[in-house]
Amino acid sequence: MRDVNIGIVGLGNVGSGTMAILAETSDSIAQKLGFRLVVKALCARTIVGKQIPAALADALVTTDWREVVNHPDVEIVAELIGGQGVAKEIIDAALAAGKSVVTANKELMAAQGPALVEVAIAHGANIAMEASVAGGIPVHTVLREGISGDRIEAFYGILNGTSNYILTEIERDGTAFADVLAEAQRLGYAEADPTADVDGFDARSKLAILAALAFGEKITAADIFTEGIRRISPIDFQYAHRLGHTIRLICGARLTAEGLILSVRPALIPESTILASVKGAYNAVWVRGKYGADTFYYGRGAGPHPTGVAVVSDLMRVAREIRSGSPHRVSPFAHDRLEANRPVSVLKQKRAYYLRFFVKDRPGIIASLASILSAKNISLDAVLQLPSDDKTALPFVITVEPTSEQSVQEAVAEMAKLDFMVEPVLALPMETAL
Amino acid sequence: MRDVNIGIVGLGNVGSGTMAILAETSDSIAQKLGFRLVVKALCARTIVGKQIPAALADALVTTDWREVVNHPDVEIVAELIGGQGVAKEIIDAALAAGKSVVTANKELMAAQGPALVEVAIAHGANIAMEASVAGGIPVHTVLREGISGDRIEAFYGILNGTSNYILTEIERDGTAFADVLAEAQRLGYAEADPTADVDGFDARSKLAILAALAFGEKITAADIFTEGIRRISPIDFQYAHRLGHTIRLICGARLTAEGLILSVRPALIPESTILASVKGAYNAVWVRGKYGADTFYYGRGAGPHPTGVAVVSDLMRVAREIRSGSPHRVSPFAHDRLEANRPVSVLKQKRAYYLRFFVKDRPGIIASLASILSAKNISLDAVLQLPSDDKTALPFVITVEPTSEQSVQEAVAEMAKLDFMVEPVLALPMETAL
Repeated sequence: MRDVNIGIVGLGNVGSGTMAILAETSDSIAQKLGFRLVVKALCARTIVGKQIPAALADALVTTDWREVVNHPDVEIVAELIGGQGVAKEIIDAALAAGKSVVTANKELMAAQGPALVEVAIAHGANIAMEASVAGGIPVHTVLREGISGDRIEAFYGILNGTSNYILTEIERDGTAFADVLAEAQRLGYAEADPTADVDGFDARSKLAILAALAFGEKITAADIFTEGIRRISPIDFQYAHRLGHTIRLICGARLTAEGLILSVRPALIPESTILASVKGAYNAVWVRGKYGADTFYYGRGAGPHPTGVAVVSDLMRVAREIRSGSPHRVSPFAHDRLEANRPVSVLKQKRAYYLRFFVKDRPGIIASLASILSAKNISLDAVLQLPSDDKTALPFVITVEPTSEQSVQEAVAEMAKLDFMVEPVLALPMETAL
Repeated sequence: MRDVNIGIVGLGNVGSGTMAILAETSDSIAQKLGFRLVVKALCARTIVGKQIPAALADALVTTDWREVVNHPDVEIVAELIGGQGVAKEIIDAALAAGKSVVTANKELMAAQGPALVEVAIAHGANIAMEASVAGGIPVHTVLREGISGDRIEAFYGILNGTSNYILTEIERDGTAFADVLAEAQRLGYAEADPTADVDGFDARSKLAILAALAFGEKITAADIFTEGIRRISPIDFQYAHRLGHTIRLICGARLTAEGLILSVRPALIPESTILASVKGAYNAVWVRGKYGADTFYYGRGAGPHPTGVAVVSDLMRVAREIRSGSPHRVSPFAHDRLEANRPVSVLKQKRAYYLRFFVKDRPGIIASLASILSAKNISLDAVLQLPSDDKTALPFVITVEPTSEQSVQEAVAEMAKLDFMVEPVLALPMETAL
């Protein structure tokens, strides 16, 4: 069969990993496909200092992405620059020219993925985005093909490696969040501006993409309830462990009687679950299907090579489809068609909750808190207090029986008015049904 | 697009799960595909007592598989009877007629999968076999598509749910193998004849299929070193835990400097690894790629519904390819092409080993064993002895530093001649590199 020619725009981390794999495994790729993937054009904002593998020496190298997209031989464009600006222009231009796109762009796919798929289909092209979520884990392929015959009821993902690294370091060493973050920044595991990671926005984009794939709905990332990990302290792990749980930043999507509930937030999960074994900078997704029951997928969330594998695997699939007639005639998002999966507010969620307090110690505290809970019809489950000498900021925990997020948020707002409260109550859901 | 018509042969466990999913989710499948999957014909050895879902009431129901395969409307045949006899006739007939096949048949695919794929390609048809290994886990899709851009260096699978159930029951309760097996048989978790499960043959078929997919080689199941779990006793878990390990029946495939080493055998794996968290009747596969590093896949290994999801997902993929031109022109096994992956004897494997003894207690035992190890150039790592009152069958363990399987087997053969040995030495590799 005739070779398939590709162009790569963006030679940063992901682009360099992609080039390395394409250069080193080109024979093996040809054996698997029956034809070669040939890199015809490469584009970076600046070419100086870029290492182009010798095997790709014949490729045009340019700083103008239009030369890649408009290259007459290029059939697939790999967009590996990210963001919603130029990346969108590149993808629009490629699709308009009937060229297929492979992308690692989570922000753009979260915001416009389903729409771009429709554009691609209209132009007889394909757009593949395995690398946009959980780099090393082929979770798109799994949802789109591997378990496409199932009806997904829920999934829980750990989709931000930096947050998971920070949480598991706090858990292991008992170091405070700020100190772990500083160390992670020093080691290059966290960005100078850590907001996207520790405040949950990166994870939110990924959740939006996976939820759209799993539930076939238009998901608006900005509507997803999102809470980061800044308030998690070593003492929370001590209490969580006492309860047989640990804490992870969970991207949750659950089909309930009320509708689809989506959230990114730290949650207690049982220590005995396989999701609790995910440590360090790893990503994982736990899926519950109506028929296939629970499956679990785990691997590196980022890195030039793991994400490069996702890009190359997508290039191979799209190339195979180009050479044999594309089966890409229906959006893998199938949105607007599965009305039952309508997203609803997280306030409708029913869960047990973990409430952690720092208070000025004095008599009557439990009575005050219990009366607020009682007024909201929330049943108190347990009160835990580990030894502490700090009477000015005494930590303790109350767990409550399953109730609505709405009630918990109302109770927490009431509690904020109490004069013995040193800082706002931390309320975390307990995902005991995993 | 025009509907795709299918026929199902075999209405046992997997067939009934498949029918249920097709019947209950037909609208959702149509939304995902853009056309309907229509069940035109069903075949079982005996029809009496079979529950056919109302939604499939229009299908022809027959006891003659030829009526399904030769049905003019049927485009895909699902072969769900298993075994290498009639199943082979059905698949041959379907492929010869240019009809695609979806199968759950591990024995036949292990023995002839790559050859049958070539036949399918020659006839312009497809043959899909996701359901043949680890029912609920889409590991075929992952290897064939999801991480096809990686170069796989090793994988370790837990692929027999019955064995894993038995091992983790021994681990949890300290009950002897024979008692756990009897209880498992009583509960229906193990067959009356448990050989295929507890002696490793079922796992061996699955390893042969996955290794062929991962390494693109002709794998002959009968050549795979295979050892079952009958000799694992509660005391082995006590010693393994003392060493920070647990024991699982591991299907291993590792690319080494000597070649591809394949084995099915009980092995010690570190308790801290994610593979060690696989308990009960679950399956899992841990993969190490040169580029993507480690990924891990987990789910139900069997059951009508999880395996039915695999069959239905395959039916959807094959139907999509039929309606849009099949990309199935190169075998996913790509065998005979990747010569470097040639299988070699397990005797070449280098590992640390766990050696467990039952001896008649008397002085000089360690000296005798150490001198045999020394003569084979094997370095002793540690000697462990937990308290025991039985001086006529005293258990203890020696661990040795990494050495070849060849040397260990020779040493074990020498040790068998010692008159204080109550039963043959149990030698298990320690997979510490996971």
